[in-house]
Amino acid sequence: GVNPDLASERQTASFSVEKLTAWLDGGAEQTRLRRAVVEAIERDPVFSRENQYFQSQNERYEEAVRKAVHLQKKMHEMGWSQEGPESKYIYRAVAGDIAFLLHRIFMRSISVLGSDEQIAKWIPLASQYQLIGSYAQTELGHGTYLQGLETTAVFDVTTQEFILNTPKISAMKWWPGDMGRSATHTVVFAQLYVHGKCYGIHPFIVQIRSLQDHSLCPGIIAGDIGPKMNFEHIDNGYLMLQNVRVPRENMLNKFCEVQPDGTYVRRGSQKINYFTMTSVRISLISTEAVTPLMKACTIAIRYSAVRRQSKLKPGEQEAKILDYQTQQEKLLPQLAAAYAFHFIDNYLQELFDRGYREIQRKNFDTLPELHALSSGFKATVTQYCTSGVEICLRACGGHGYSLLSGLPSLYTKIIASCIYEGENTILLLQTARFLVKSFMAASTGQSVPPSVAYLAAAKPRKCPARNKLDFLSPDIYTEAYQHMAARLISSTAAKLQDLIQSGVKRHDAWNQCTVQLAQAAKAHCHYLTVKNFAETVEKIESKAGIQKIMKHLCDLFALHGIFSNAGVFLHDGYVSGAQMDMVTASYLDLLAIIRRDAVPLVDAFDFTDKSLNSALGCYDGQVYQRLYEWARKSPTNKQISPAYEKYLKPLLHNTLSKL
Amino acid sequence: GVNPDLASERQTASFSVEKLTAWLDGGAEQTRLRRAVVEAIERDPVFSRENQYFQSQNERYEEAVRKAVHLQKKMHEMGWSQEGPESKYIYRAVAGDIAFLLHRIFMRSISVLGSDEQIAKWIPLASQYQLIGSYAQTELGHGTYLQGLETTAVFDVTTQEFILNTPKISAMKWWPGDMGRSATHTVVFAQLYVHGKCYGIHPFIVQIRSLQDHSLCPGIIAGDIGPKMNFEHIDNGYLMLQNVRVPRENMLNKFCEVQPDGTYVRRGSQKINYFTMTSVRISLISTEAVTPLMKACTIAIRYSAVRRQSKLKPGEQEAKILDYQTQQEKLLPQLAAAYAFHFIDNYLQELFDRGYREIQRKNFDTLPELHALSSGFKATVTQYCTSGVEICLRACGGHGYSLLSGLPSLYTKIIASCIYEGENTILLLQTARFLVKSFMAASTGQSVPPSVAYLAAAKPRKCPARNKLDFLSPDIYTEAYQHMAARLISSTAAKLQDLIQSGVKRHDAWNQCTVQLAQAAKAHCHYLTVKNFAETVEKIESKAGIQKIMKHLCDLFALHGIFSNAGVFLHDGYVSGAQMDMVTASYLDLLAIIRRDAVPLVDAFDFTDKSLNSALGCYDGQVYQRLYEWARKSPTNKQISPAYEKYLKPLLHNTLSKL
Repeated sequence: GVNPDLASERQTASFSVEKLTAWLDGGAEQTRLRRAVVEAIERDPVFSRENQYFQSQNERYEEAVRKAVHLQKKMHEMGWSQEGPESKYIYRAVAGDIAFLLHRIFMRSISVLGSDEQIAKWIPLASQYQLIGSYAQTELGHGTYLQGLETTAVFDVTTQEFILNTPKISAMKWWPGDMGRSATHTVVFAQLYVHGKCYGIHPFIVQIRSLQDHSLCPGIIAGDIGPKMNFEHIDNGYLMLQNVRVPRENMLNKFCEVQPDGTYVRRGSQKINYFTMTSVRISLISTEAVTPLMKACTIAIRYSAVRRQSKLKPGEQEAKILDYQTQQEKLLPQLAAAYAFHFIDNYLQELFDRGYREIQRKNFDTLPELHALSSGFKATVTQYCTSGVEICLRACGGHGYSLLSGLPSLYTKIIASCIYEGENTILLLQTARFLVKSFMAASTGQSVPPSVAYLAAAKPRKCPARNKLDFLSPDIYTEAYQHMAARLISSTAAKLQDLIQSGVKRHDAWNQCTVQLAQAAKAHCHYLTVKNFAETVEKIESKAGIQKIMKHLCDLFALHGIFSNAGVFLHDGYVSGAQMDMVTASYLDLLAIIRRDAVPLVDAFDFTDKSLNSALGCYDGQVYQRLYEWARKSPTNKQISPAYEKYLKPLLHNTLSKL
Repeated sequence: GVNPDLASERQTASFSVEKLTAWLDGGAEQTRLRRAVVEAIERDPVFSRENQYFQSQNERYEEAVRKAVHLQKKMHEMGWSQEGPESKYIYRAVAGDIAFLLHRIFMRSISVLGSDEQIAKWIPLASQYQLIGSYAQTELGHGTYLQGLETTAVFDVTTQEFILNTPKISAMKWWPGDMGRSATHTVVFAQLYVHGKCYGIHPFIVQIRSLQDHSLCPGIIAGDIGPKMNFEHIDNGYLMLQNVRVPRENMLNKFCEVQPDGTYVRRGSQKINYFTMTSVRISLISTEAVTPLMKACTIAIRYSAVRRQSKLKPGEQEAKILDYQTQQEKLLPQLAAAYAFHFIDNYLQELFDRGYREIQRKNFDTLPELHALSSGFKATVTQYCTSGVEICLRACGGHGYSLLSGLPSLYTKIIASCIYEGENTILLLQTARFLVKSFMAASTGQSVPPSVAYLAAAKPRKCPARNKLDFLSPDIYTEAYQHMAARLISSTAAKLQDLIQSGVKRHDAWNQCTVQLAQAAKAHCHYLTVKNFAETVEKIESKAGIQKIMKHLCDLFALHGIFSNAGVFLHDGYVSGAQMDMVTASYLDLLAIIRRDAVPLVDAFDFTDKSLNSALGCYDGQVYQRLYEWARKSPTNKQISPAYEKYLKPLLHNTLSKL
């Protein structure tokens, strides 16, 4: 049965949980489809994650390969295809705990960068798993700065081959997934040299392991990079190349080619590469950042409704910890953020789809904006969600620290999202570069993309709010965010100009502004998130109380941001100290209001117990029973430790004299 | 040899690293002693941590027991005693990776809570390891709120025994270290019942495992609680008691006793318990929070001086990432904080020692202040250091995410310090209670303890700084912090009073103020940290450039705090927006200044390579070579995974048809 403390939370929901779920999914039909996929996966014991927290890196890897292979069979059985509508729910259902994700990147890179002949040759082999691919870009010495990669590919005209080398230890490929133990092939990025001239980074298909017995090919040194904070299931690998020769045809040559005589030909636009990166950054926001935060909120909020500790009122029963203001202040802003970022993800997807349609018509005008937004939101959302998951973990006290809570693994995984696919600080500075340019353009009356049009608008000088209720008006807080973002962008652009005009070199001036530029980029994304949330709420047709609770969440997200970043709003007096007190009052009031619907709001995310894989987060709230039963299954309880015979027994039986 | 990029950093140190080390240690003699202990431990292969990142929970436990047993032998060999001057360096040298820490708490609790007879009986047995002790307080359902513990001890007059029970699943003892697999005895905290009347929580010595064969005693169910985010080497355990009988003499009875006829006698003061808690909180600040942050800074800063990525100036060599302002802004404030907290630890130790001398003279006057400060600083320092370690980890990009960097394990361990020995939010609210009381007392002219005397002082209304250099004056920024802390305390106290006067019940009013009360407590600790840092710098006799660089660090710590928490300084106009721009300018200038000495400043912490246990942080800066060599030793490279024969080979050889 359901713990009565959790059951009671559900009886008083102010809205229909099922309707909210359907709305979040994009319609009841999507919900049905998602549940069907999840059920089919979870019913299959091969996909069980029950022992995950007990497994070694070797065991995790073996399981991930097993699942990846089994998934092919399952998809065939179920009639699911890679391109089918089920596809996006499969990854959610297996919770990312599966191998061959890089095999898909291998295929994507060939599809995008390969010629028609190359696609015709390699894609069928990869689709049929007659080879296993990886994608070898990052090196021990270079991640972000691709121009600095040190692997070389020298064209040998006599044999019509490229000779690949990692000429020093820092040039070794390092990190590529699926490469440490699984892959037979990989796309290697290397500096192309022809007749002694360097043409920059190009992609080459290289076989690294025998298709017969999986032994390393001649000239290849490869292996696993060892233990990591998470991703134990992935064999991130290293790769050294020593005079490895590949035929001329193995350079992916849709955009550039080395002809038999060594003539280098560049063709077409490389802007599409740019677009691929954009697409990856946008797609990871939902799966790698928002979903884990939603899971963490589900676990922490359900647990906080069944955990009772200390007395709120003398003489009464111990209180649910969710009833403490400090606990609400930890969790409810994270819940609001999970919703906010779900909606910004929708916004980015739409923008991306529109951009893609334009690109198919050879119109690349939206690319700069799309690149700036995908970079900025990748950085801000992963950062926010990572700290949100950490807050949820700590809000569960000691039990949150047990792997069985599910929270540590969510945290150790999501933190990587701040680093991969572009380190967050670098990405923010890319967004900032776009913002400064747009601001300059807007200042001189040129037209700018829609997301930065506000930089051209006239700004009100003071926030017009007169009492705490005024701060529940989306116009009031959205304008405050807009003003704040515009101020940070314009003042940093001005500082940059001043430095340059005072004789500081452009690159030095840029470096001296980067702390503030990164802050301005964050402010821009924060503003757009608030604006988009408010617009989303506005558009909801009033049904079953959903608009009302979403409005509360939107207010909470916005006011939490002002409360937590008070300095940037107070700085020029746009918001006064007295108004900040109103913000605080409204913000704290909202905590108590949203607390009432906190459990229904996480129920609406509709995670199954298996997908949460948490002793604290189960739907029935039987946390203590489950912690105990699960702990007993731990390998630490299945084996008498050799420590007793070897060390404890001699110690206890002998006393110290004989040590 | 040393990487030239690291060697060059050391040639330009503005101060003597060796002299700074000696000063941090409290004198050159201490440095000598510390190094001798560290060397003796590190020379001994039993204490090696080289394989730590590759080991399973079972292996880590076995190693920790082995080390704990071996340490007894080592101490005997070396002529070290538990009370000797070497003692405090031993724990640092073994880096906490050792068993039987709870055995020491077991002994301490008997020493403090036991009668002379009990001490005479149990302490020799424990000292000689004729038993292994643990300390069973926390339950599955209760941590912070001790009054709520559910384990019972019922006195049976007929047999002169206590009957112990954990009557429901939530009453099970959960988390005690050394209890899951090692301990033979434990101190159990239980609700005492005599003749049906409950007398509250009392401590009982209970044997849980046979001294002969280590089997569980009758009525005992015990085991390991399973995998955790870290602390794999500790067997945190669970314990159920089913009608377990212990003799009357096993209740620790220094302060209260049950006489043979069931008469309950309370004697002496329990205030000393209070003091024990205080002592534990203060002692963990250095070992569990500041030391890990120092290690993380050492690793991240050395790595940032050898990692080159992208070009700062066109046409030049790639830049050290430490030369980027954004990287400086991540790392250098953490470095300054490590120093700041080292000094506040000194301050707290002195305060504690003075308090202890008073208590020995039966004067308990300093206890409330000491309790408030130990709670507040435990919370603020562990919180700050935890996020500092996370920043260091992320600042190392992908390589920081490898366990071999040493950073993930520092993080996953330090985060627990925010929870154990008092959850941080609860602790902050205890400090806040003291602050509100002190503020009320000060307002009515009563005398208050020294650390809160500032609450009574008249406050200047505006910050007098006129240019950015003024903000390098400790008087200017210390007063800003003082003003800010006093404002937050007084305004929250006023809100509390207003609520109560408007008819809100006292406990509800308190709950409605807790978010702001916690913020006020943090502000108080932040102020004292800045003040103490400034006073420490003031007292340094100018030697070998140490005072100068410490002054820079103090300025950086203070201005970083104002820059990062601008809202609370701007709120009432004490600092104006224009002044905040000066703060920002001075703050960013300081980053560039301190960057020059960043490597010498971490070198001065004097961690050996073995104690850092990091491929990125070694003294010689040969990071890539070391990452590669270490990764090759990983178990993932020592074994051909069964995944090949089982899954990959059939897949590659068959194609999908046969799956």
